[in-house]
Amino acid sequence: MGEGGGLALRGTARPEDVEAVRALVASTGFFSAEEIAMAGDLVRERLAIGEASGYEFLFHEEAGRLAGYACFGPIPCAPGRFDLYWIAVREDRRGSGLGRRILAACEERIRRAGGVKIYVDTASRDQYRPTRAFYEGNGYAVEARLADFYSDGDDKVIYVKDLRAAP
Amino acid sequence: MGEGGGLALRGTARPEDVEAVRALVASTGFFSAEEIAMAGDLVRERLAIGEASGYEFLFHEEAGRLAGYACFGPIPCAPGRFDLYWIAVREDRRGSGLGRRILAACEERIRRAGGVKIYVDTASRDQYRPTRAFYEGNGYAVEARLADFYSDGDDKVIYVKDLRAAP
Repeated sequence: MGEGGGLALRGTARPEDVEAVRALVASTGFFSAEEIAMAGDLVRERLAIGEASGYEFLFHEEAGRLAGYACFGPIPCAPGRFDLYWIAVREDRRGSGLGRRILAACEERIRRAGGVKIYVDTASRDQYRPTRAFYEGNGYAVEARLADFYSDGDDKVIYVKDLRAAP
Repeated sequence: MGEGGGLALRGTARPEDVEAVRALVASTGFFSAEEIAMAGDLVRERLAIGEASGYEFLFHEEAGRLAGYACFGPIPCAPGRFDLYWIAVREDRRGSGLGRRILAACEERIRRAGGVKIYVDTASRDQYRPTRAFYEGNGYAVEARLADFYSDGDDKVIYVKDLRAAP
């Protein structure tokens, strides 16, 4: 199976992706206004300063419209370690396996860049139950938990996948 | 006791701080070339985009020369949570209690900004033993540990201080 199971993916960010990413992230009904803005800001930063931003993207379009995307990048001062900052699928495409294929494509890119570990931060609150199930179903394990991180009662849950241990 | 135990501290970054911070951080013999560059980059980013950088600074000078500084900022999407990104004291001023006073001043600033929790990342390798002792001696507790984070055998150790619990 090729990268992302044969998905057509674009790695180069374009100016119109700032708004497309915001619209997609907003469509999920999942993120706060601050988070929606921030997702677009990462694209903007990539456009402004390129690779120095530390943000890499994979965009998947269907009929010319953004259907899913991911943002990841190397962790400074930790060779071979990468953060997965965002992965999101447009609301009407959820449950189709698209997220899993985009995630597999990210892992493949990271592996080819010499990456050995991928970290993902998520939250412990109920809303994020499908998110945590998604990572767990894709070979990610809980590595640490920071109590009351996002707010009192909402922990940060840090997942990791060791690409050397993966099949 | 006033902020920082009466230390004269400057919160506004100046262009010359980029190099002064790099020189100070290098003087400790503690950080890699990548880390030294990055410490200066945070000042540069503050100068370029101001508060939007997310980086706040406290500088302490003696006889017109930078003797110690800290960099901290609010964690996005986590109200009241702050990261302490850097705290460093010039090599010939180590062991003088200056680090502790700068840290106390950061905590006071954070408290006044509505902060309730402060996070600090550090490493588990031997070189960082004094760093960990410094945080532990100042009311920080280990909250989580990410195995082999910086490299195989070198974990990330995340400390936290809850300002509501502190005396």
